[in-house]
Amino acid sequence: VGPTSTAGDPGAHPLGWVGWGAYDTRPRLEARTRALLAAELGPLGPSRQPVALDDVRVAPSRLPPEVHASLVAVVGAEAVRDDHRSRVEHSGGQAYLDLVSRRAGDALSAPDAVVRPGSHDEVVRILEICRTQLVAVVPYGGGTSVVGGVTPERHGFDALVALDLGRLTQVLDLDETSGVASFQAGIRGPQAEQALRARGYTLGHYPQSYAYATLGGMVATRSAGQASTGYGRIDQLLVGARCATPVGTLAVGHPTPTAAGPDLTALLAGSEGTLGVLTEVSLRVRPCPELERYEAWALPSFAVGAAALRDLVRRDAAGDVTRLSDEQETRITLAQAEGWKVDALHRYLAVRGLARPCLLVLGWEGAAGEIAGRRRRTRAVLRGRRAVPLGSAIGDAWAAHRFAAPRLRDALLDAGVVVDTLETATSWRGLGPLYLAVRDAVADTLRARGTPGLVLTHISHLYPTGASLYLTWLARQERGAERDQWQAVKRAAGDAIVAHGGTITHHHAIGRDHRAWMSAEVGAVGLATLRAVKVCLDPTGILNPGKLLPPAATAHPSSS
Amino acid sequence: VGPTSTAGDPGAHPLGWVGWGAYDTRPRLEARTRALLAAELGPLGPSRQPVALDDVRVAPSRLPPEVHASLVAVVGAEAVRDDHRSRVEHSGGQAYLDLVSRRAGDALSAPDAVVRPGSHDEVVRILEICRTQLVAVVPYGGGTSVVGGVTPERHGFDALVALDLGRLTQVLDLDETSGVASFQAGIRGPQAEQALRARGYTLGHYPQSYAYATLGGMVATRSAGQASTGYGRIDQLLVGARCATPVGTLAVGHPTPTAAGPDLTALLAGSEGTLGVLTEVSLRVRPCPELERYEAWALPSFAVGAAALRDLVRRDAAGDVTRLSDEQETRITLAQAEGWKVDALHRYLAVRGLARPCLLVLGWEGAAGEIAGRRRRTRAVLRGRRAVPLGSAIGDAWAAHRFAAPRLRDALLDAGVVVDTLETATSWRGLGPLYLAVRDAVADTLRARGTPGLVLTHISHLYPTGASLYLTWLARQERGAERDQWQAVKRAAGDAIVAHGGTITHHHAIGRDHRAWMSAEVGAVGLATLRAVKVCLDPTGILNPGKLLPPAATAHPSSS
Repeated sequence: VGPTSTAGDPGAHPLGWVGWGAYDTRPRLEARTRALLAAELGPLGPSRQPVALDDVRVAPSRLPPEVHASLVAVVGAEAVRDDHRSRVEHSGGQAYLDLVSRRAGDALSAPDAVVRPGSHDEVVRILEICRTQLVAVVPYGGGTSVVGGVTPERHGFDALVALDLGRLTQVLDLDETSGVASFQAGIRGPQAEQALRARGYTLGHYPQSYAYATLGGMVATRSAGQASTGYGRIDQLLVGARCATPVGTLAVGHPTPTAAGPDLTALLAGSEGTLGVLTEVSLRVRPCPELERYEAWALPSFAVGAAALRDLVRRDAAGDVTRLSDEQETRITLAQAEGWKVDALHRYLAVRGLARPCLLVLGWEGAAGEIAGRRRRTRAVLRGRRAVPLGSAIGDAWAAHRFAAPRLRDALLDAGVVVDTLETATSWRGLGPLYLAVRDAVADTLRARGTPGLVLTHISHLYPTGASLYLTWLARQERGAERDQWQAVKRAAGDAIVAHGGTITHHHAIGRDHRAWMSAEVGAVGLATLRAVKVCLDPTGILNPGKLLPPAATAHPSSS
Repeated sequence: VGPTSTAGDPGAHPLGWVGWGAYDTRPRLEARTRALLAAELGPLGPSRQPVALDDVRVAPSRLPPEVHASLVAVVGAEAVRDDHRSRVEHSGGQAYLDLVSRRAGDALSAPDAVVRPGSHDEVVRILEICRTQLVAVVPYGGGTSVVGGVTPERHGFDALVALDLGRLTQVLDLDETSGVASFQAGIRGPQAEQALRARGYTLGHYPQSYAYATLGGMVATRSAGQASTGYGRIDQLLVGARCATPVGTLAVGHPTPTAAGPDLTALLAGSEGTLGVLTEVSLRVRPCPELERYEAWALPSFAVGAAALRDLVRRDAAGDVTRLSDEQETRITLAQAEGWKVDALHRYLAVRGLARPCLLVLGWEGAAGEIAGRRRRTRAVLRGRRAVPLGSAIGDAWAAHRFAAPRLRDALLDAGVVVDTLETATSWRGLGPLYLAVRDAVADTLRARGTPGLVLTHISHLYPTGASLYLTWLARQERGAERDQWQAVKRAAGDAIVAHGGTITHHHAIGRDHRAWMSAEVGAVGLATLRAVKVCLDPTGILNPGKLLPPAATAHPSSS
């Protein structure tokens, strides 16, 4: 049954402190991939293994004993952990800077303790203690943030705990009449999907972090999901939420839209643990699709492909998954297949006038007849753009590996290759100029630093009004200057994005890494508004300090 | 071209101070309608005409001369009006209580002056003056609020002005590539639609107030529109907004969704002039539909019809307009047609087992082939529920009169009949119990007061997760106790709505009349959050005092 069968069981491969996989099951690069990288990036250095867990450094826990005792009184001794592994595991997420630190043995950002509440009321009581005792709290779901969203920052607070929602995994209600399911927020993607599929329903929400990410984390970061073009983003599926804040419970939402004032669910979606801790979420679900199928096409160029995607989404014809790679990403994707197959494919496409093809993957989910209608409309649009059908094999291969990229990253880091992703979105009118600007900003920055890189781009989330761009960049790591290298690329890319009307993040969220651009997103009055909400719900500023809002936003003891 | 051709030109029939139409063009009830009402409600009294404009009472203007001078310095003398007609016209909207007052010659709520800015910057400067001079401001778009949303309340402020956006009517941009149009917020529905249709596009947004309502007002109140099932609500069409606040400009939104923090456009949608004044809105537009057609069906009962609607929306088969009347509304609707036609129709339906039919109107807009597909799926669902097709005449009649109800209300008031509407929404699971509870609460209240009424209900906005209920109630007015009568019904209905999981308003907004239920909507922490935003953007509490938030929310001189 779709992604539930292709995603790794999170129980089998727990999200490791060292990267996406467990320490001892990390993948190795194939020889062909190593050769390709060396050809593209220059000679790779020797392998760079992360240190062992025991050698990772954390600071002594600074949680006052009386606070520890208060927390134990709420959740029990078993649920307040300060052992070495628990602290290291909660010292950050999966952002590049996080991985660079932990792999080098630096987990100095580790929380003083990890608290694992068993109910909404326990979360409320924990936050009450931390509010009055001035203990910072980092809400922690799946730990999959790639933007530093769960990396502890103290900003003047002496003590800091991670609040791990891993025990809140129940399905609370499935209202089949209305197509609404309610969950505790700590449930992971596959757990939720399995429970729904057993009763004939699906959420249809598959971010790349699916195997580990929690539904609460997805809502808190406004995740899109690989099938967003068909199923909609998580914030479009959200109909209600229960949120524990330091000043009490905020329960918002309706099963339908309303006109009863501003939509407060939209304040919680994207709040990234800075306003409260989501403990329950209600989401729209749909009957399981009868059919899931994948196919691929080749388009004559990225610009022509983008225009075709626009036509598709305007005609309600796009795939639930629709993903168009640019020329560079297509070339690298195909180069990883067997050499003779690729050569044959390139000859086949060249004969049809596609000298520099762009790969389009389409995923269809739904009733057979409904899919047939959409595919018919899609074929008409694509043939009008001189696209060449490539059948199901390449599409199936994408589906089989749809959640694999994060594990590949671990192997690349072992090989001394920096790899990170960037994403943005804008209107159809602005998409072409934005693409060129961001792609070139990344490539130029890497070239100027003497580590020429690969920049691979695809469009992967379509809206009637615009689409997202997703860039993957790779280069040789600058040994000893890994952070400088990454920050230079990030700054150049982020500035290019906002200068060309893109959003600084379409689905990764703000976290730590994007907060410098928040004022470009919402302006001074918008920031003041978010800060006012923050002060109202979190008067002592304990929640996820340093995230989402630029520094001035955080009210904490040393500034107040 | 659709609604643009059937709606009255607002220039020809300006929204009058006395009701929906101009004073001298008010409609009269037909004899058949009078007879029907007398049979249903009891004997009607003598006609009750509103007083003449000259006899309407307003208080002397209390705007300090120096504030008047400051405002004139910003907008010019022509654009600061304090003549009798201007003040009476801005003394309220189209809520029942507003009409009762004005018809009886009471416009004591009138603003001290009406200010008509010509640009966003002028709005900013006006708000700056009013913030520092402590002058309350009621933002005024089309004046069509049926919940007291534009009725001035002073709450301790000595002076109050209406800020009329009637000069801000430009189409700023039509991005055909992205399907996004930007407007000044004071443009009315038909003006916007005509400008779009001239270039081949449509907004597809037709609230019953369409002829007069402004796009800014629609966003500020989260209007749904009669075709919301197909086109989506105004807040689903909204991609960006520019808002003047007393502390400066808040410009928010993106052409696509983003994950850059909470969606601040969702704070402005539904803010009802309490947080700022919308001056520009950007909305999704679509190519004009090839075809618009209407049809009607009869369903064997309201419950069966509701289940059919649920099936339709789940299969993407519903009409863009989908409107199912309950048995009572169907009976009254049909009774207004010629007697022999109705008798024949009832016999025709009775033979088919529909002794108490429920009327379903479906409106289709789109490409011919696409409509054909949806209608095919719809027919299959409806036939499976023993529905009987009634052809296009009844559907066309609905479309021809789709904006006529407010004018009919004026005639009913002339006849001494109270008529008002209530609306709510909930999940498909909760819809049946909510319907019975609200309908009976209204009917029981009226009967207990000795003015037995008619309660007519339809479902008119469908979502995958639920739907809205729209109730129209009529009774003989209690002379001398018009307000008590209305308030008793309102209180009973509102309490029944929230007790049964409905929202207090699906598309009329909160305004003055629903604010007592806001704490049931969002709870104490939700109210505190909205108040924090209010204090941030409107620190002296000048914006639309007494609206949206229950009284404690308004920061004003006498409470601070």
